[in-house]
Amino acid sequence: MKLGIIGLGRIGTIHAENAKLLEDVELVAVSDIRIERAKEVAEKLKVKKVFASPEDLIRDPEVEAVMICSSTNTHAPLVLECARARKHVFCEKPLSLDLVEVDRMIEAMKEAGRILFVGFNRRFDRNFKKVKEAVEEGKIGTPHVLKITSRDPEPPPIEYVKVSGGIFLDMTIHDFDMARYIMGEEVEEVYASGSVLVDEEIGKAGDVDTAVVVLRFRSGALGVIDNSRKAVYGYDQRLEVFGTKGKITVDNIREDTTMLTDEQGDHGSKYLYFFLERYRESYLEELKTFVKNVAENEPPAVSGEDGRMALLLGYAAKKSLEEKRAVRLEEVIP
Amino acid sequence: MKLGIIGLGRIGTIHAENAKLLEDVELVAVSDIRIERAKEVAEKLKVKKVFASPEDLIRDPEVEAVMICSSTNTHAPLVLECARARKHVFCEKPLSLDLVEVDRMIEAMKEAGRILFVGFNRRFDRNFKKVKEAVEEGKIGTPHVLKITSRDPEPPPIEYVKVSGGIFLDMTIHDFDMARYIMGEEVEEVYASGSVLVDEEIGKAGDVDTAVVVLRFRSGALGVIDNSRKAVYGYDQRLEVFGTKGKITVDNIREDTTMLTDEQGDHGSKYLYFFLERYRESYLEELKTFVKNVAENEPPAVSGEDGRMALLLGYAAKKSLEEKRAVRLEEVIP
Amino acid sequence: MKLGIIGLGRIGTIHAENAKLLEDVELVAVSDIRIERAKEVAEKLKVKKVFASPEDLIRDPEVEAVMICSSTNTHAPLVLECARARKHVFCEKPLSLDLVEVDRMIEAMKEAGRILFVGFNRRFDRNFKKVKEAVEEGKIGTPHVLKITSRDPEPPPIEYVKVSGGIFLDMTIHDFDMARYIMGEEVEEVYASGSVLVDEEIGKAGDVDTAVVVLRFRSGALGVIDNSRKAVYGYDQRLEVFGTKGKITVDNIREDTTMLTDEQGDHGSKYLYFFLERYRESYLEELKTFVKNVAENEPPAVSGEDGRMALLLGYAAKKSLEEKRAVRLEEVIP
Amino acid sequence: MKLGIIGLGRIGTIHAENAKLLEDVELVAVSDIRIERAKEVAEKLKVKKVFASPEDLIRDPEVEAVMICSSTNTHAPLVLECARARKHVFCEKPLSLDLVEVDRMIEAMKEAGRILFVGFNRRFDRNFKKVKEAVEEGKIGTPHVLKITSRDPEPPPIEYVKVSGGIFLDMTIHDFDMARYIMGEEVEEVYASGSVLVDEEIGKAGDVDTAVVVLRFRSGALGVIDNSRKAVYGYDQRLEVFGTKGKITVDNIREDTTMLTDEQGDHGSKYLYFFLERYRESYLEELKTFVKNVAENEPPAVSGEDGRMALLLGYAAKKSLEEKRAVRLEEVIP
Repeated sequence: MKLGIIGLGRIGTIHAENAKLLEDVELVAVSDIRIERAKEVAEKLKVKKVFASPEDLIRDPEVEAVMICSSTNTHAPLVLECARARKHVFCEKPLSLDLVEVDRMIEAMKEAGRILFVGFNRRFDRNFKKVKEAVEEGKIGTPHVLKITSRDPEPPPIEYVKVSGGIFLDMTIHDFDMARYIMGEEVEEVYASGSVLVDEEIGKAGDVDTAVVVLRFRSGALGVIDNSRKAVYGYDQRLEVFGTKGKITVDNIREDTTMLTDEQGDHGSKYLYFFLERYRESYLEELKTFVKNVAENEPPAVSGEDGRMALLLGYAAKKSLEEKRAVRLEEVIP
Repeated sequence: MKLGIIGLGRIGTIHAENAKLLEDVELVAVSDIRIERAKEVAEKLKVKKVFASPEDLIRDPEVEAVMICSSTNTHAPLVLECARARKHVFCEKPLSLDLVEVDRMIEAMKEAGRILFVGFNRRFDRNFKKVKEAVEEGKIGTPHVLKITSRDPEPPPIEYVKVSGGIFLDMTIHDFDMARYIMGEEVEEVYASGSVLVDEEIGKAGDVDTAVVVLRFRSGALGVIDNSRKAVYGYDQRLEVFGTKGKITVDNIREDTTMLTDEQGDHGSKYLYFFLERYRESYLEELKTFVKNVAENEPPAVSGEDGRMALLLGYAAKKSLEEKRAVRLEEVIP
Repeated sequence: MKLGIIGLGRIGTIHAENAKLLEDVELVAVSDIRIERAKEVAEKLKVKKVFASPEDLIRDPEVEAVMICSSTNTHAPLVLECARARKHVFCEKPLSLDLVEVDRMIEAMKEAGRILFVGFNRRFDRNFKKVKEAVEEGKIGTPHVLKITSRDPEPPPIEYVKVSGGIFLDMTIHDFDMARYIMGEEVEEVYASGSVLVDEEIGKAGDVDTAVVVLRFRSGALGVIDNSRKAVYGYDQRLEVFGTKGKITVDNIREDTTMLTDEQGDHGSKYLYFFLERYRESYLEELKTFVKNVAENEPPAVSGEDGRMALLLGYAAKKSLEEKRAVRLEEVIP
Repeated sequence: MKLGIIGLGRIGTIHAENAKLLEDVELVAVSDIRIERAKEVAEKLKVKKVFASPEDLIRDPEVEAVMICSSTNTHAPLVLECARARKHVFCEKPLSLDLVEVDRMIEAMKEAGRILFVGFNRRFDRNFKKVKEAVEEGKIGTPHVLKITSRDPEPPPIEYVKVSGGIFLDMTIHDFDMARYIMGEEVEEVYASGSVLVDEEIGKAGDVDTAVVVLRFRSGALGVIDNSRKAVYGYDQRLEVFGTKGKITVDNIREDTTMLTDEQGDHGSKYLYFFLERYRESYLEELKTFVKNVAENEPPAVSGEDGRMALLLGYAAKKSLEEKRAVRLEEVIP
């Protein structure tokens, strides 16, 4: 697969490095509005084509598939351009903050007959995949309660917070997708509570930094997500599914398995710091899956509809937070 | 302290046995409406006085303090009788399902100048006490999120469910008390969601068997409780407090510390089955504390007001479940 | 069973308290060379007879069984006295430091037709029992390697060390018994290495404070014991059996299950301090078993022969340490 | 650094793949006696030169450093050839089974003024490095006891066993190096015990498959290594150092962090299967260190002398197994 990557920030660079590790992928073009950054990455990774304009990259005939890793507001026009150029698309999450745009992106890619794959990388983490399999195999019976803890080590810059769409669309959106993925069924009602406890600036920007979200699935199963923008001990990514036959959990991951025991007791090592450390492997798996989906002409492992549903859940959570009541999903469909 | 115990079911019997272990307590009288049960226990534990009537036990001049372990509907009249007889009272939870009665019980005991101690035994579990101390010592900084998981190994008989007041007043009430105890501050808003997933009969009785409750504390900190009436793997009692400096957790307790490793991986032993196994030690600590509170004329470690607040939280959860919205505590004060 | 206890040090007092908890045991007599100590315990536990002379206790017709908890050098004469008086005997470990005496004790009790039960309490720990059962049930297949770690929190007083018979007869003897118990077969060869690393005074007393012992069982299975007189983090009691189908381990036990996580990582609570905390429950189980063995006229769960074999292993270890070579068990039989 | 690799079995191939990941390394040549294998790897990894003869690779002027990953019996002649050609050498363990040869290799490389780096990859595992640092920083005080458990998931082919030099030179040699690395001091005495419990063919080949080795360090500290050729649950690599201030342990690593809990208790995932999975990362770290040592003209992180000492310990263990006694290291120096 001949691949082009647009946007060479942290995530775009990871994808570029991973692309170089795969034998059946050739990274032929990169693009970044900071052209020097694009040149630097291209030189290091020996990518032959560098574009200042993402549209030029998309239109390049050699490029078969495009990874869109630029800022969220560029996702919609670039996906539409990919549809016009009939290129497969891997788009980072969220597809867009605007549901109307998302619908248009999905529609356009469908008409183009090309794959739209959304970058919910956590689905490709080995631990969560194992849970998904265990649930599907019935190891915990019928799921009754899903619990997700997701805490970042520190808040993003306040300028980012202001354009992020808020905690539910920026951060919880990953957990919404995970909830649907693990449970294999849709949410019908959302309740959200939130507080400003980490940084007052976040509150001034109209957002919360600590949140609890309750999900009601169609089967009556319940879900709970708790988020914080700041866990001083590092990235906190845990999950539990409880059902009629038992429970299965995913715990955090430490830097190493050493345990020091002294007069105070046992001391285990620190957790992995953030998503780059915690989910490094998942990005490679994600890319492999995208490549496989394209090669074998399969439906994408994470579809535009998946991106759309996660966005709807974020909308419902925002509405619930404002109105202090449970919000049904149909209430937020325009 | 010369003690009398009313009601010799599971809990009353535990208290009776524990009373025999304490040097500064003399169990002088027992009472049970099943007089044969009372005689049997009295003989085994060498208790000299057996009463068919709980009022007679309360009025016996030798009895200084009374443990009320009979069914919930008897609590109010017996506490009022104790107040009249000026006896110290240890009353099992809940004080009553009726807030007006609870207020009357508190008032009467206050006027009698005697201690009213409510049997929230989990406060005396060594693990939760350790968490309480850690929070007070600031080890996790300012608390932001409290999480409590509380699942029973199997539902009570459906006849019990019908008179229990519902899951929030019967089961969650322990978690409500734990939440207030650990956080050291009051809840101002409650949201509850629930489903009937374990047993349809519970639904027919107008109750739910699986529930998630979100608490908002005055400081803005958030709490989450998840309950199930049936965890096939045994009693599930976990807690986590997350704050500005870290988190502290209490995990479940296994029957033993053995770990078998075979071709499938690691296998740890089962969890303790239910509250009798899990909290055995806490009942003894609880009784010691009651005895100490009486002896040293201290305020009770768990007061009538604590029992009242837990009841209010249960009321708010019920109202929230019905109205699908967050309910402020003042809405449920009559 | 009407019981008398001789020697009211730490262990004797535990046995006395436990005897009071058992319904089918009546503690009728106690004895201690410090008569005031005996009177104090008798008063607290409401024991009717107090003897200054242990022989008088043994000869008292009411006493059916005797627990010998006095110092090691008194064990032999007292057991022989019990044999003469035809009383069942529970004798603390070691039976004696002198193998000839041990043989005489075993012989005398056999002739008297009474039970001689040796106080290897660790066999009655729920964790080690679970391992024993797992091994017998074949859960780990055929055992190949046994590993025991046994470390005390601090060395005994140097005066005690001098009369203790050395680390192998005083401390490792428990591990020798555990090795035989778990493996269910006999040791045929012993190698021991040791150093003085904790306290030079121990070295001056002719003993070591840190030791590693290798056992070769008849089947060819190997065992390793490592001992230290001083683990600053508390009592360290771990065991592993490895076999053709897997391994089973017993880990240490913490004071509680809390885990604090901060910027440094995870912090678990301290281990239980010493044998009184770690093995409290086992002493009660041990006593129950002794009572049951007597009542049902069974062979004792821990026999005089078991005590003798542990002593032989200690002898072999001492010889090995001196001669820096593996010593076969038959080399140390007089 | 322009690198050539000799021998493209499992380990050689890993090194070749890792070399391609490093920016400051160019893998310019490969060699394997199976020339087709060499061509295959060269094509896949885009290596320009392929040699049938390892000597030709060594003499190629472009090659600056050579990794010797061919069978043990070829190590000595190839290292000597490298010395003549004045090339830096990374040699897989063991350097040779013959101490005289080892001395010659060390001497030749010293005279050539080039680095001889021995492939004890476990030193570069993040967990063991963390232990090494903790010990050096005094976190456990003065070390008293070192314990290493090292078990393979299954024995090598019997043909390999026959030429391996025996378990101590083939398998334990890694643990001997780890022991010296962690403790930072030399062993002065070795005792070894062993049995044939896994496969009788191993016994017929004159080897054992289950072993326990006791080390005495110069400080008096003691070490214990236990080995098995077959652990059905996967590769078992654990380590513990116990000292005056506490202990530090390295536990095994599971495939993932999921935990399933059902009516039987907790179930954790399988351990990583073998060294390729468990130590994958360490090989890359090892190679980086070799490259750095060469680039910065440093002494190698693992020297020829380290390889020699591990071999001596293996000799002593063999002698001890035969003579059933502790063997001092000087006894096995020719």
